[in-house]
Amino acid sequence: MWAALMYGAGDVRVENVPDPVLQQPTDAIVRVVRTCICGSDLHPYHSMPAAGHGTAMGHEFIGAVEQLGSQVPGFKRGDLVVASFAYQDNTCEFCREGLQTSCPSGGFFSEAQAEAVRVPQAAGTLVKLPAGEDSALLPSLLTLADVYGTGYHAAKRANVNPRTTVTVIGDGAVGLLAVLSARQLGAEQIILMGRHNARTDLGRGFGATDVVAERASEGIERVRELTGGNGTHAVLEAVGYKNAYQTALGVVRPGGVISRVGVPQYGEAPIGFDSLFGPNLTLTGGPAPVRAYIDELLPGVLDGTVQPGKVFDRTIRLEETPDGYRAMDSREALKVLIQP
Amino acid sequence: MWAALMYGAGDVRVENVPDPVLQQPTDAIVRVVRTCICGSDLHPYHSMPAAGHGTAMGHEFIGAVEQLGSQVPGFKRGDLVVASFAYQDNTCEFCREGLQTSCPSGGFFSEAQAEAVRVPQAAGTLVKLPAGEDSALLPSLLTLADVYGTGYHAAKRANVNPRTTVTVIGDGAVGLLAVLSARQLGAEQIILMGRHNARTDLGRGFGATDVVAERASEGIERVRELTGGNGTHAVLEAVGYKNAYQTALGVVRPGGVISRVGVPQYGEAPIGFDSLFGPNLTLTGGPAPVRAYIDELLPGVLDGTVQPGKVFDRTIRLEETPDGYRAMDSREALKVLIQP
Repeated sequence: MWAALMYGAGDVRVENVPDPVLQQPTDAIVRVVRTCICGSDLHPYHSMPAAGHGTAMGHEFIGAVEQLGSQVPGFKRGDLVVASFAYQDNTCEFCREGLQTSCPSGGFFSEAQAEAVRVPQAAGTLVKLPAGEDSALLPSLLTLADVYGTGYHAAKRANVNPRTTVTVIGDGAVGLLAVLSARQLGAEQIILMGRHNARTDLGRGFGATDVVAERASEGIERVRELTGGNGTHAVLEAVGYKNAYQTALGVVRPGGVISRVGVPQYGEAPIGFDSLFGPNLTLTGGPAPVRAYIDELLPGVLDGTVQPGKVFDRTIRLEETPDGYRAMDSREALKVLIQP
Repeated sequence: MWAALMYGAGDVRVENVPDPVLQQPTDAIVRVVRTCICGSDLHPYHSMPAAGHGTAMGHEFIGAVEQLGSQVPGFKRGDLVVASFAYQDNTCEFCREGLQTSCPSGGFFSEAQAEAVRVPQAAGTLVKLPAGEDSALLPSLLTLADVYGTGYHAAKRANVNPRTTVTVIGDGAVGLLAVLSARQLGAEQIILMGRHNARTDLGRGFGATDVVAERASEGIERVRELTGGNGTHAVLEAVGYKNAYQTALGVVRPGGVISRVGVPQYGEAPIGFDSLFGPNLTLTGGPAPVRAYIDELLPGVLDGTVQPGKVFDRTIRLEETPDGYRAMDSREALKVLIQP
């Protein structure tokens, strides 16, 4: 089959690789119907050391079940399914607590930008979709694999509710869907920090009440002006760079929550008296256990209440994947949908 | 009046200073009936640069009202009162949210190791006690000024409840009262990390189910053994040194909460993928808004359900304050009560 492989920073190739095969009775093989490129794929695209071999990429997909191991109840060949970007058994104590990303039988996909994927722990990972392969809802349904659930995780962890004011840092797909999620959870003031007009316009459509294009101290000043000087109860940080964390510290209200879903590209950062401790701030977040949210978010996608698929602004074929990375990296494209 | 002054690290003197006077109509002057030395007073006792002048010390006191400004309704001369270690108006939006430590009209006491104290924002700061100056409950009532409310804050912020397993790091007064608080909130497994037998025995009396005397990686290993390998849902960190934070990271369960009430003696620390982010940990805590908890905790003290005053293991006169600091610093004494 054909698959996208990364050979180092800036070097993505589409090559012929062996077809995936069932390895465990809990596995399934899924033919990929839609996959996409994630903002987090850009981190290795910037920094991966050049290697003589390629690394498979991609962790978001909708597909059709092709083969099932003997221990995958509830599915049949041909079912259209979405997978969470982390696989899990969905039965262990962590999964039952809604923390599927810490499932001891779990792990992360990294081979979805391909024609087919082996799905470990398929019974706990795949969710059947009441839609056909030609459904216009596929882009929105695909966001359930990661970016929508990740934005929602940021908002849930921050305890966003109708009495919460919110700042979202980052106008990438996750930031925009954090806006959508905050709105769904009832927040009435949602300030989106971002400076790409097309994206922040989409953010307004998702529910942002204010857009702050300024960055660093100017951006902090602007958010404070918009909030009576105090900052917002919740800050949803969807970038991952240390300056985004510093901005979060600047715009959060005393007693508030900084909820991170951008994968931190740093190790240490300020958490002492003058940053987190003195104002009783809470720092939370992490890789989203999106499986925990799919059942809750699916109905709104199916009935059209929300259209998270609007984050996709370009569709390509699998063989064009290298150009898809380039387009996202240069910010020509917000999020690239791949149709194998 | 007589008051304790710190002239530099290790140098506490009791000297005659001017009596406090009313400065604002919202002030009160309180004659100190009991005060004490706090673990946090030991930080300047270790590090304060020597100076030609003394710095007033102390932030915990029970006293009798001596003078009232014109805007202090609800009190009369002679009332026995306890003050929270931070003063506040208790009417602003932060106070109404239970975050009195962020009150714009607020601040921290630092002159309570004396015969009398000026209390700013007295109406929002003082709480009348239904007890006499000779009550046997005074030590327990005094813990409402700081250490009990601070331990309780740690447990509340960590959302301790009957389904929560808890580790408490630190066997000082705050750590021990974090144990008591976790028990009050229903936790059934409470692991106390500390190595001073007299203190950990008191911790067992307060509700600790396990004591871990080992430190660092050995201590982490031991807590993991006690928790099926996973660590505890809540970690209440009542020390403030960076190694205590590192220990907290080691003993917290994925998805769990590290709640800090020990004043951090560090600025930056690990919060990246491998520490906080990957396992979806939450970091919270800060200076306790103890005023928010006094009404809730007072009844249990008055009816003897809890005896937080057991943390006091030495009582001295005000003129012996320098020796009190020495005794706490050398760990001869857990917490020193001062009877002016």
